[in-house]
Amino acid sequence: MSLLVVGSVAFDALESPYGKVDRTLGGAATYFSVAASFFTPVNLVGIVGDDFTEKDAAIFRGRHIDVEGLERVPGKSFFWAGKYSENLNERVTLATELNVFADFKPRLPERYRASKYVFLANIAPDLQRDVLQQVTKRPKIAALDTMNYWIERSNADLRETLRHVDILMINDIETRQLSNEHNLLRAARHIFKMGPSTLIVKRGEYGAMMVDARGVFCVPAFPLEEPHDPTGAGDCFAGGFMGYLASAGNRGDASLRRAMVYGSVLGSFCVEKFGLDRLRTLKRSEIHGRARHFAKLTQFKL
Amino acid sequence: MSLLVVGSVAFDALESPYGKVDRTLGGAATYFSVAASFFTPVNLVGIVGDDFTEKDAAIFRGRHIDVEGLERVPGKSFFWAGKYSENLNERVTLATELNVFADFKPRLPERYRASKYVFLANIAPDLQRDVLQQVTKRPKIAALDTMNYWIERSNADLRETLRHVDILMINDIETRQLSNEHNLLRAARHIFKMGPSTLIVKRGEYGAMMVDARGVFCVPAFPLEEPHDPTGAGDCFAGGFMGYLASAGNRGDASLRRAMVYGSVLGSFCVEKFGLDRLRTLKRSEIHGRARHFAKLTQFKL
Repeated sequence: MSLLVVGSVAFDALESPYGKVDRTLGGAATYFSVAASFFTPVNLVGIVGDDFTEKDAAIFRGRHIDVEGLERVPGKSFFWAGKYSENLNERVTLATELNVFADFKPRLPERYRASKYVFLANIAPDLQRDVLQQVTKRPKIAALDTMNYWIERSNADLRETLRHVDILMINDIETRQLSNEHNLLRAARHIFKMGPSTLIVKRGEYGAMMVDARGVFCVPAFPLEEPHDPTGAGDCFAGGFMGYLASAGNRGDASLRRAMVYGSVLGSFCVEKFGLDRLRTLKRSEIHGRARHFAKLTQFKL
Repeated sequence: MSLLVVGSVAFDALESPYGKVDRTLGGAATYFSVAASFFTPVNLVGIVGDDFTEKDAAIFRGRHIDVEGLERVPGKSFFWAGKYSENLNERVTLATELNVFADFKPRLPERYRASKYVFLANIAPDLQRDVLQQVTKRPKIAALDTMNYWIERSNADLRETLRHVDILMINDIETRQLSNEHNLLRAARHIFKMGPSTLIVKRGEYGAMMVDARGVFCVPAFPLEEPHDPTGAGDCFAGGFMGYLASAGNRGDASLRRAMVYGSVLGSFCVEKFGLDRLRTLKRSEIHGRARHFAKLTQFKL
């Protein structure tokens, strides 16, 4: 089943104790698409400037990522620069230049409008809602990411959008901020009243937690000795999760659990190298191998 | 197989948003013993003052906890007072009065000396070593807990003691401090060179992680809507872990994993009420029920 993603396509400058790059392709929709494309075809809606070249687009080609929805306009693409602390657990944003992204009005090409699986990456909540309205039939699963900025400044808009969303996928700080509740189970109950029936809390080095009416499912982060760059890990998690779900074609409990594992698998590969580098060479066999490794990491018999 | 624990038996004053108690029985060895006693007989070595009454001792009776090794001397028992923040994720120590604990010299009754399973709760590393030396034959498993105070002030002593220990069971901050290494896998490799072949990292609301030569095993914390008091949770984890292992009588991978689960089960019950209150009424059937719930929380099929 094809999967629609709307979000940022950007250039990033990254610095971590393991190295430095001045300009590398990034953005939530980019990481998401590449991760999801290991499971299912992806339709990408975003915007780039005329600094985005055919060479940059190479990452999408030959991967079942359709970029008809990637609008190209005069000007510069979204640019983000960040620097990570020695242990990669903190980061400072050095620059955020919205550029052409500031006037982004997502427009779905006709053939994207029947999408059954939709991921609304972290952009303004009114734009996320716009996208959902362009989808002709209610999707099987609409999932949404957001951030503190929108929770604080566009709360009403965000609440309105959440009414039409099945899965909310945010980090623990955002969960607590949105729900005004520290305890994550109580936070989930608040959030269920806002619309989503499933909450996925991304907890960085502690893994991820899924809460729905059936209960809770936890998956740890894959232990790595030398993570290089956490940029995009959350978006790769979302891409692995939604990509797997779209390929499974159902939202039963067993599928959602597997989706959590494949999301974690893609997130873990992402941080192994800088930017998209690890994903460029990643093989399906490695994905399945690591999923089995996740089983070893968590399984026990009573 | 009988299990030996040495550590503090204390009175605690506790305050959390859920209530307040001025004086309740606590101490690492107390929590450990009660938790472990659901699985195996426990021999307790500790010291109390003459303020410790038969009523206080009631918690040990009828539980297969032998207190011949609980020395009673004139003076006051160890006293600790602490207050938790609104979300229970921070605590302030309001008072630490060592009292009779200041001159504690653990002495093992003759029949404790053949112990096959030994847990050295958080006390001075030279006293922990003393205890090991009083055990006549090398135990099947010796496990140790410690804290920042000893890592900083008795580092050489702690290192000497660690040479004789199989399992080190500490929290993530202590792991990083002891190993001088932020990454927990690299930290584990440093710690293996110090003696222990297994590292168990207690991560509070994020659960626990076990690392040994075979790899990593993670177990989440049990999600609770209303934890009341985190005091003793780590000691109950240790008690459930060692109690189960002693009852299993082997240290194979499957047993260690189950021990991690039973440790987490006991830790989760502990925080449900104040002090030892939840453990006082806890039933074996509840323990096994929650262990099955941990399976639901973590298991998936690829």
